[in-house]
Amino acid sequence: MERLLEGIRGPADLKQLNRDELKQLASEVRQALIDNISQTGGHFSSNLGTVELTVAMYATYDFPPDKFIWDVGHQAYPHKMLTGRLKQFPGLRQYGGISGFLRREESPYDLFGAGHAGTAISAALGFAVARDRLGTKERVVAIAGDAALTAGLSFEALNNAAELKTDITVVLNDNKMSIAENVGALCTHLARLRSRTWFQDLEDRAKAAIERLGQPIARAAAGIHHAVTHYVAPEYTGAIFEEMGFQYIGPIDGHDMDVLLDIFEHAKNLKGPIFIHALTVKGKGYDFAEDDSRKWHGVTKFEAGDGKLEKGSGGESYTSAFGDEMIKQAKRDPKVVAITAAMPDGTGLTKFSKELPDRYFDVAIAEQHAVCWAAGLAAGGLKPICAIYSTFLQRAFDQLVHDVCLQNLPVRFMMDRGGLVGADGHTHHGMFDLSYLGLLPNMVVMAPRDIAELRMMIECSVDYDEHPIACRYPRGGDPDVGMPTEHAPIEVGRAEVLQDGTDITLIGLGTTVATVWQAAQQLADREVSAAVINARFAKPIDEETILRYAKKTGRLVVVEENVCRGGFGETIKTALANAELAPHIRHLSLPDRYITHGSQSELLKEVGLTVADVVKAASELLFGQAAAPVEVKEAAKVR
Amino acid sequence: MERLLEGIRGPADLKQLNRDELKQLASEVRQALIDNISQTGGHFSSNLGTVELTVAMYATYDFPPDKFIWDVGHQAYPHKMLTGRLKQFPGLRQYGGISGFLRREESPYDLFGAGHAGTAISAALGFAVARDRLGTKERVVAIAGDAALTAGLSFEALNNAAELKTDITVVLNDNKMSIAENVGALCTHLARLRSRTWFQDLEDRAKAAIERLGQPIARAAAGIHHAVTHYVAPEYTGAIFEEMGFQYIGPIDGHDMDVLLDIFEHAKNLKGPIFIHALTVKGKGYDFAEDDSRKWHGVTKFEAGDGKLEKGSGGESYTSAFGDEMIKQAKRDPKVVAITAAMPDGTGLTKFSKELPDRYFDVAIAEQHAVCWAAGLAAGGLKPICAIYSTFLQRAFDQLVHDVCLQNLPVRFMMDRGGLVGADGHTHHGMFDLSYLGLLPNMVVMAPRDIAELRMMIECSVDYDEHPIACRYPRGGDPDVGMPTEHAPIEVGRAEVLQDGTDITLIGLGTTVATVWQAAQQLADREVSAAVINARFAKPIDEETILRYAKKTGRLVVVEENVCRGGFGETIKTALANAELAPHIRHLSLPDRYITHGSQSELLKEVGLTVADVVKAASELLFGQAAAPVEVKEAAKVR
Repeated sequence: MERLLEGIRGPADLKQLNRDELKQLASEVRQALIDNISQTGGHFSSNLGTVELTVAMYATYDFPPDKFIWDVGHQAYPHKMLTGRLKQFPGLRQYGGISGFLRREESPYDLFGAGHAGTAISAALGFAVARDRLGTKERVVAIAGDAALTAGLSFEALNNAAELKTDITVVLNDNKMSIAENVGALCTHLARLRSRTWFQDLEDRAKAAIERLGQPIARAAAGIHHAVTHYVAPEYTGAIFEEMGFQYIGPIDGHDMDVLLDIFEHAKNLKGPIFIHALTVKGKGYDFAEDDSRKWHGVTKFEAGDGKLEKGSGGESYTSAFGDEMIKQAKRDPKVVAITAAMPDGTGLTKFSKELPDRYFDVAIAEQHAVCWAAGLAAGGLKPICAIYSTFLQRAFDQLVHDVCLQNLPVRFMMDRGGLVGADGHTHHGMFDLSYLGLLPNMVVMAPRDIAELRMMIECSVDYDEHPIACRYPRGGDPDVGMPTEHAPIEVGRAEVLQDGTDITLIGLGTTVATVWQAAQQLADREVSAAVINARFAKPIDEETILRYAKKTGRLVVVEENVCRGGFGETIKTALANAELAPHIRHLSLPDRYITHGSQSELLKEVGLTVADVVKAASELLFGQAAAPVEVKEAAKVR
Repeated sequence: MERLLEGIRGPADLKQLNRDELKQLASEVRQALIDNISQTGGHFSSNLGTVELTVAMYATYDFPPDKFIWDVGHQAYPHKMLTGRLKQFPGLRQYGGISGFLRREESPYDLFGAGHAGTAISAALGFAVARDRLGTKERVVAIAGDAALTAGLSFEALNNAAELKTDITVVLNDNKMSIAENVGALCTHLARLRSRTWFQDLEDRAKAAIERLGQPIARAAAGIHHAVTHYVAPEYTGAIFEEMGFQYIGPIDGHDMDVLLDIFEHAKNLKGPIFIHALTVKGKGYDFAEDDSRKWHGVTKFEAGDGKLEKGSGGESYTSAFGDEMIKQAKRDPKVVAITAAMPDGTGLTKFSKELPDRYFDVAIAEQHAVCWAAGLAAGGLKPICAIYSTFLQRAFDQLVHDVCLQNLPVRFMMDRGGLVGADGHTHHGMFDLSYLGLLPNMVVMAPRDIAELRMMIECSVDYDEHPIACRYPRGGDPDVGMPTEHAPIEVGRAEVLQDGTDITLIGLGTTVATVWQAAQQLADREVSAAVINARFAKPIDEETILRYAKKTGRLVVVEENVCRGGFGETIKTALANAELAPHIRHLSLPDRYITHGSQSELLKEVGLTVADVVKAASELLFGQAAAPVEVKEAAKVR
């Protein structure tokens, strides 16, 4: 039988389908998710949860001109399939293929990019106000997960929405836990909403309630202090959202196509801020994923039939080593506590959370609070270790500036996913951390060249009370490139000289130490004596060692997996300028643009950070190929 | 009569006073505020509002070991007076004197620094959890203003507090508008709480309710879905806070000493998260300030008797020019809309808000939302102009990275208070913006050398759709230093050569253009021919012009009012290195440490950014004083 899905070129085609066909289409979308993601890997269980929701919304609203703004993107694969990208799924998250998140460049239906949680309500409110000002009439809908609501940004947007009183609909895709277990008071509130007994016979009640939808009933009786309109449940309902000025509808069964179609059909004509609370099940329709939706949040390839996930490399990763070492350090020092912002699995803290539950804190998707709170913990005498991805720590930049560094409080930051992360792409690369941390007074910034050094740096951090200290390390495991397995003891601000040399100095930091190490071995084949420096610290840099080698060899190649501006290399340039040294220098860094998704090695090649690139840069300095002559006017004294 | 206030060396002394004496003390604190701030200027009306609150709290809680964590600091002058700093008030906010905000370095009672709003609940929760883990027993209280609650950070902390279930008290100092009019749904919620009719006879009710305080009454009856304890008002009360898991007490009269003492006396022994909602009046007890608390938020010196504020310079400021130009530009281009995050007065948008109210948006203290929302507005076809202080835009760093620049959406940022701001000090200097904006792909960053150029840059921004664009400018007005009053047209990425020269090139950006201009005139007296470049753009820099002058003069002095790391000067060093140019260079920038408060000129002197410093640096390059020789090994070709 010909599938309906293949005939869907865009949302308009859903308008031609009757309810039975829409149910069939949903079933096909679900199967297509299983078929495709089992082949490519990707975000899985959240997407299985939004199938009916997405089909019902596209069948109900009008395209053009209506606008859907999706939060995060973990939930938007069905959206991608229904907006002309079904055939591109075999290339999902692969170099040159479609993104796992939303991208304006990818489709006119991806109206606002997404990757970090909590942006959809704010952005949708922007589209709504732009519509009002430009005098058009389209509907604007934000679709956000329950975890995204814990982000302060979502709250700020909800707070503003009621003030603006414009027409906007927020659909809460409440799957009870978005990445890890959801935490916090808001979660409890949602749980209470879910647990109401009448939810047992929700469908009947919803249908009865829908008859009232055409004519909103304002609870405006004397003695009632809030003007709230109730639909599905006229009794106690979504108090927080009502207090924030939204009309609350829900909770509704996010997998019941009839309910969804009825609700959206009526809700789409309501005025003002509307909040639709849909309950969905992560992994819906795929038993293995329903049973363990957290394990199936983001997956490798798998056997669709038996739910067998392809094994990873099997080797130790930086992430797992961090988790193990944290347990060890916490047992050594009773003041150590671990903090995550909704990422226990991603950061490697799951095991810690089980072994030392009273010293483990998941603050939800709330990086600002995680960091300010950690400053409070440190001021209160503990040793907080914040495990936050490089890209997500950006959310807490002001707390770094204002609460941690200004007060010189010894908070420890462990930043996984530093540098290029691979398949997650644009929104998730840790491209900026050496810069945005390096510019902060008092901050110490380091990066290990291998997993053994990561463990040493964690121990060093625990014992270091003088300043806040941050350690960034990459996604993945160690490269096996023959670097020395012995490590000099960690000393803050001191580099490690891995190999002496006289012709040229190659300086790496973190991941790029392995790169320059290999380049040095290739250069040795050409009888070049290259010194190799493992910088270890991006701040403070080891000026003594670096300047000594700059003088000794006259040529430097500096390589970092961070943007040029404000990074490690520019700091070296400043140190050189301050010392009135002008060696020949090549600085390889990430380019001044955002980087796509793909394997880490594909991306490193694209941006010019491979061993070959280092060898080429060194060769230019050594052998003069393409090297410009020094054109400096001699600084003769005037007068 | 001897004042009681002079005898208060610390909180313990308040314990010796009876209620009548505490009321007298409050009255003395109020008078001391008026006496002192009329002489020094400073934040005024918020501090008059917290007098009784502060006296009652210090009279009730125990020091040591209890801990108060204050939000922002505008409300904490009474706290400073009662914790041993009364005699230092004549030096308030002056160079070498006490800070206008909280600083850990200043007093053991300033447990957590404050300056940016919304940090207190998060930090206090840190102290509370540290206490629990370390096994001590002190009480922890956060005091936050109503405006601070609109910050996403506050929400994130409230959300986490209920989860942690630790003992913590949040005192909401609700003065109805903290800086400007408070906005948003939360404000409406608070207004509803305030407006309850029984508030008319609050005192009686409060006293009756207090009798119940010893024994919390949980509303746990069947059919009631939230376990909430009510005190003052068992009927509908602070639903949001109750839903977030707090026991809500209030609203109470924040100026009634008897009520305050009773409430705190009982509340201090309650367990779990407690929320005390105190209503206060900005400017309380000083009629002029009560009548116009916004005008009296932060003041210059004034005549205490007749409320006459000392006139400012009278000259045009960057702030007022921005406000005027925005009106002009908005009238020229109907797509222009203006956004502020609770700072209409500070950013100069008040006049705009009156003339073009439907194109003016105050989103509350919610910089994350302001920026993400602006990205949505731009994607929706408008031309949003975000007017946010340099230091506050730090709050939205991830939205700059992830929502604006990644999507290359043409949001315009107008950043007042770039560089050193003066009396506000550490927390408020705009020290980092050239770095944290400069590292963002797609971002354009500029700074005008005078007010006329600011106006040109605003116009340029409005017409510039290719990229997001940011303009930073200082607090204050134009220096009168004889710079050319004619300006070359603004062209993105092009510098303006103010003066040709052959011996040395002086490069300034924004405020430092006037500095290098004056230095050039002094150097001319010594027969030095100095080129003067107004860089205009920190990103992209005008490489062509700068490299041309580097070659031509062989000597560069680069001056910026930003930290070195990632700033304008390091980018020039990279351009020079890429071009294999090695002129003699001096780079003057803000040091790698936080800067105190004081006048802008005192601070510039402290950090070495005066005209004399530029002349000295140039002289070293020109005449060899103290200049180190170039020690570069000649880059001979190997092999």
